[in-house]
Amino acid sequence: MSEKGSLIVISGFSGAGKGTVVKGLVSKYGYSLSVSATTRAPRPGEENGREYYFKTVDEFRNLIDYNGFIEWAQYVENYYGTPRKFVEDEMKQGRDVILEIEVQGAMNIKKQYPDATLIFISTKDIPTLKERLLGRGSETEEVIDKRIRRALEEADSMDEYEYIVVNDDLSTCIDTVHSVILSGKCKKEHKTEFMKGIKSELTEYASK
Amino acid sequence: MSEKGSLIVISGFSGAGKGTVVKGLVSKYGYSLSVSATTRAPRPGEENGREYYFKTVDEFRNLIDYNGFIEWAQYVENYYGTPRKFVEDEMKQGRDVILEIEVQGAMNIKKQYPDATLIFISTKDIPTLKERLLGRGSETEEVIDKRIRRALEEADSMDEYEYIVVNDDLSTCIDTVHSVILSGKCKKEHKTEFMKGIKSELTEYASK
Repeated sequence: MSEKGSLIVISGFSGAGKGTVVKGLVSKYGYSLSVSATTRAPRPGEENGREYYFKTVDEFRNLIDYNGFIEWAQYVENYYGTPRKFVEDEMKQGRDVILEIEVQGAMNIKKQYPDATLIFISTKDIPTLKERLLGRGSETEEVIDKRIRRALEEADSMDEYEYIVVNDDLSTCIDTVHSVILSGKCKKEHKTEFMKGIKSELTEYASK
Repeated sequence: MSEKGSLIVISGFSGAGKGTVVKGLVSKYGYSLSVSATTRAPRPGEENGREYYFKTVDEFRNLIDYNGFIEWAQYVENYYGTPRKFVEDEMKQGRDVILEIEVQGAMNIKKQYPDATLIFISTKDIPTLKERLLGRGSETEEVIDKRIRRALEEADSMDEYEYIVVNDDLSTCIDTVHSVILSGKCKKEHKTEFMKGIKSELTEYASK
């Protein structure tokens, strides 16, 4: 009896370190990671199929028409989408799939997959968030400012997530997210078949 | 900022091994274990304050009158109860407290402590349950029969538990219950203060 895998959606403030947390979950616990498709141009060092699947606008639109994405969105002039086939194949084979996506995409996933586990990653406070963005060294004050203002919008959606995990110590955060995913499998809502089986075995026994 | 500890209620079929799981949680992860009070006589090897607090009927009734229990019940001719002071003191000090109690007591706890995490431990199936009861060697066929019939009643209450954890491999079961407890702390319902703080910091930042 192979159980279906879970769908795990991870979002969080830019700078909260969700990318690193996701990488840790994949390397330490062997989760499957869904790679998004995009029409934006690859940046130096990015590889097709690793960071993104790079598509032309025509290819992307064609995939939308063929229901090839479980969610997609347009940010500024670029399309981003989560390929349906990989996610559904992995889950069918009992593997847990992680999607690292924006708040808006997460809400779309929740509608289609009510069983998905939605996890929001945050720093312990906003000064820490700002520090981390500054620490990257690659962003201008203006970009950081924009990101923190965007975080304000994202914070309004935190309530829609089932779990809020604070990324203070990276390794603790990775283990905590893993615990959240494990515990999801024990929820009684996911154990209805099991409970039915136990009850019918007991009823059979009692009727002897 | 010291967070309040959680209250964890563990129930399960007789023979599912919940006592061993609880012992493992205490020794491996340092949880506090609530010791029940009872009016039944100590069995050979039992120690006051370890297996139970042994009380006379008068003492027990007096404790009921003084609101000394968070739940109590009478089984056959004996009283059993969960002392209030220990549980509330431990939680106030930020420690997670485990109660190993019967289904009926668990339902009482849920009413008084809606934030309590209710976990039900089961074997993977009923033949395994029967095997384990037989394996103890100390029970007659009649007692085993009675226990399995009682399991049928308990199974009706499984739906009232938030989590169902299968005890197939003991060590896995202990780790899984620990994960369930950890994940409970990340539920958004327990993060309202945190989210309020983050939002107010962001609002302050954006208004600069």
